[in-house]
Amino acid sequence: MLILYYAPHTCALASHIALEDAGATYDLRRVDFAAHEQRGPEYLAVNPKGRVPALATPGGILTETPAILAYLAQIYPAAQLAPLDDPFAFARVQAFNSYICSTLHVAHAHRLRGSRWVDDPEAIAAMRRKVPESVGACFAYIEEEALAGPFVMGETYTIADPYLFTVAQWMEGDGVDPAQYPKVAAHREMMLGRKAVQTALRAEHGKG
Amino acid sequence: MLILYYAPHTCALASHIALEDAGATYDLRRVDFAAHEQRGPEYLAVNPKGRVPALATPGGILTETPAILAYLAQIYPAAQLAPLDDPFAFARVQAFNSYICSTLHVAHAHRLRGSRWVDDPEAIAAMRRKVPESVGACFAYIEEEALAGPFVMGETYTIADPYLFTVAQWMEGDGVDPAQYPKVAAHREMMLGRKAVQTALRAEHGKG
Repeated sequence: MLILYYAPHTCALASHIALEDAGATYDLRRVDFAAHEQRGPEYLAVNPKGRVPALATPGGILTETPAILAYLAQIYPAAQLAPLDDPFAFARVQAFNSYICSTLHVAHAHRLRGSRWVDDPEAIAAMRRKVPESVGACFAYIEEEALAGPFVMGETYTIADPYLFTVAQWMEGDGVDPAQYPKVAAHREMMLGRKAVQTALRAEHGKG
Repeated sequence: MLILYYAPHTCALASHIALEDAGATYDLRRVDFAAHEQRGPEYLAVNPKGRVPALATPGGILTETPAILAYLAQIYPAAQLAPLDDPFAFARVQAFNSYICSTLHVAHAHRLRGSRWVDDPEAIAAMRRKVPESVGACFAYIEEEALAGPFVMGETYTIADPYLFTVAQWMEGDGVDPAQYPKVAAHREMMLGRKAVQTALRAEHGKG
């Protein structure tokens, strides 16, 4: 049995959608960020990094979205969530997901998590001011270079799609206008029509 | 034939070491950061993100260190650089590499690349002041939770090792004292004794 530790409005949504895509049997455990549960001893025993997502598996705990997504693709090969038999194509999926976690998500995090990198309140405010530009630059790169369409990798759905959808949920909050990135906006709209996405969103917001 | 685009003192070193570990036939192309070549049209045609590493392969260009490392492990299976037949073990390697790119490398980048996230010079200086603490926290996590020893994953060398070695090269520059992280320091020392590491360092600094 798999257990996904998540919080609403976080990147854990990508793993949640992929669990649905895979047809996996899993349980959900919501980590209450408002109550700082992610810093409590119970959750730190699950994930010492104090972040979501974490996935409890029969082998132990996994963390980090790109790793969880590739794991799900590998243990549910019938769902065809990644080009497992083509190292180059698989690496392109991984490169996309790596870009999301190391660049786009990081740019986004400067809006609400600036204290990770600076203490001075004025510097935190200065960081926040640049988020529309830095996150916008990431979506410009995706729009122009990385999103083949209709899916990230072209005609085939992969684990890159729920991850892009997840971070594209944050555009308006980050001061980024989806209308400037029509391929990204169309991808988001298409994803909203998928049952796996609807199921995951309903589960997170029903408990949210 | 593979071609690695790199610059000295960057995370491209991890891919460079892995190419050596794999026994790959490859060429090196140095991107001259001092001359801003990474922002020139020639290099942007290779990697529109304007960063290193990039790996030219027979199938096309790959970017992002975790993706390149997993690709090399997959196309050179005889080198046994990752547990390719065990999805959970492979995911743990990937989670480690994902943490390096999304958290440790990002904390480090606030020292010299602060303008990615802020414009105000005082805020950039404030970011720089926190680097010893934020990078140090990453090494504390690795020391206490992630580095099994002697290799990252325990008794077996994987693509997590050249990546950890690469970012551990930056400790002193980031104001982090290696003596506080004895397992990380011992790993760095052990890696320095490996032929692949010595060959890669010599190639980068001979041309540097």
